[in-house]
Amino acid sequence: MNEFELIRRLTQSLPTNETVVAGAGDDCALLDLGVPGRLILFKTDAVVEGVHFTRETPPEKIGRKALARCLSDIAAMAGTPTAALVTLALPRSFEADFVAGIYAGLTALAERFQVAIVGGETTTNPERILISIALLGMVDKGKQVLRSGARAGDAIFVTGELGGSLAGKHLDFEPRIVEARWLAEHFHLHAMLDLSDGLAGDLRHILRAGKVGAELLKSALPVSRAAKLRARGLAEAGQPVPREPAHGRKPAVLAALTDGEDFELLFTVASREAVKLLDAWKKKFPALKLTCIGKIVAGDGIVLRDKNGGQKLGVPGYEHFQD
Amino acid sequence: MNEFELIRRLTQSLPTNETVVAGAGDDCALLDLGVPGRLILFKTDAVVEGVHFTRETPPEKIGRKALARCLSDIAAMAGTPTAALVTLALPRSFEADFVAGIYAGLTALAERFQVAIVGGETTTNPERILISIALLGMVDKGKQVLRSGARAGDAIFVTGELGGSLAGKHLDFEPRIVEARWLAEHFHLHAMLDLSDGLAGDLRHILRAGKVGAELLKSALPVSRAAKLRARGLAEAGQPVPREPAHGRKPAVLAALTDGEDFELLFTVASREAVKLLDAWKKKFPALKLTCIGKIVAGDGIVLRDKNGGQKLGVPGYEHFQD
Repeated sequence: MNEFELIRRLTQSLPTNETVVAGAGDDCALLDLGVPGRLILFKTDAVVEGVHFTRETPPEKIGRKALARCLSDIAAMAGTPTAALVTLALPRSFEADFVAGIYAGLTALAERFQVAIVGGETTTNPERILISIALLGMVDKGKQVLRSGARAGDAIFVTGELGGSLAGKHLDFEPRIVEARWLAEHFHLHAMLDLSDGLAGDLRHILRAGKVGAELLKSALPVSRAAKLRARGLAEAGQPVPREPAHGRKPAVLAALTDGEDFELLFTVASREAVKLLDAWKKKFPALKLTCIGKIVAGDGIVLRDKNGGQKLGVPGYEHFQD
Repeated sequence: MNEFELIRRLTQSLPTNETVVAGAGDDCALLDLGVPGRLILFKTDAVVEGVHFTRETPPEKIGRKALARCLSDIAAMAGTPTAALVTLALPRSFEADFVAGIYAGLTALAERFQVAIVGGETTTNPERILISIALLGMVDKGKQVLRSGARAGDAIFVTGELGGSLAGKHLDFEPRIVEARWLAEHFHLHAMLDLSDGLAGDLRHILRAGKVGAELLKSALPVSRAAKLRARGLAEAGQPVPREPAHGRKPAVLAALTDGEDFELLFTVASREAVKLLDAWKKKFPALKLTCIGKIVAGDGIVLRDKNGGQKLGVPGYEHFQD
């Protein structure tokens, strides 16, 4: 049994009560605590030294990332973040300036999104820094977007560009709070999540939840410059050349499909809304790319189409592509 | 600068917004999210292997303790717990049965208090298990009890018995949710918290918040049997003899004043309510001790009184007592 199987087993029969609208399994838990016209969003997320950042990462960016990941989950439900608690687990020999830097990055981002930081616990974790954020948010009843509503025929959209996030974007990404709220206000989104484990893996969450499949158009995938550079063994100016994967350079399309930490929105809408949505988006958010990358189909799994036909993606998504 | 000073500095100027009734500095954050007649309580707490439990601790008790600590904080505000999120940071080579045991202990306690577990995140912490719980609760507006309302003349009460918790109670303690709610419903509590760092240290939080002092009656302190046994170098049947502190056995009264993890309620009420409260308590909760241990006075700090007079407790509380 691997970790994911275990957690799936454990979270299948968790205690519930009358406040729970949606529990484990979506980007946030969804609670009805009696706020007229609104539901509460509830989420935690942790970042760990050596996994999500290193000792060399500037502390401001560590703090920023810890909160931004949670904000991205609130965005994925089309919600508005409200208040956060910070749990800081630190080695005993921490440097005060380093911790102050973590808080500086965290609070700067919180202020930008009008999120209150309502408490800060510290505890000991002798070997490495761990930061866990608990975040509350709100969403108007009926405006929340779950992972489960995709229907055959839907157009699949993604914001921004994909792949290569570890070259730098994972520390600086913008949680798509404003964009997601605008989308949910003006269009009937069927399903949405934020990309954290890579397009192919995260799209499967939507497909399984909706009992549908997807066809992606290879040429439509918005591949990031970082992923393209890495495929050629290069790096962005000012960034270190990333370590090569075990079997050589990673093709850019594969990076766009499987790299984690994109933190872009992935959502589906009825295909008849697709053109109107793209037009309205370009006027509202001219600086941020929005791409229709394919469609939801009956069946299951993901087929990647190019001029030579379709290729079914295996579950891990690690096929060997040529660009 | 030590950890506490740093955190105090960092949490002095945290971002806030219009939902915040009370932020960092009390047992829980207190939010007004628009629930008619009610406020939201929000709390996180983490337990760490080697600090709050060991690999030898039965996993059910680890999970139970992780949640119970948070429940105790909700109790300290006289609130009702509603929904929790579980963050489990695990070494890569975890045993599935061990993790299942953690969840079993956690969910059993959650069910007893009708708390929904609405999500379970896992992440990697290579060297040791860390569990962070985020908990939401509710309290009727006006019934919440902060740390800051103590007034000169108040009687100081404590539930249960104090000291020696690490001999076993810290894994089995009962969060005083029911008792705290009953107290707040029937009496006007001025200040309350749950004892986690030891009576002397935690009482100082109430004193500083209320700008008052306290006199404690040494003979009134409800010293636990575990603390008395340890003072004589003995242990409860079935429990290991605790390691001796560096300078020999710990006198039982000192243990009651300074041992952590009691998780009992400490609160103050106007002295004219004290006798009525004690009488009503004995009828309602005959199995749980409630003790008046002293009074709030003008000034600051803690004076411990016995037949020989009063002795001011130093800030760390580590004076050398004779039993």
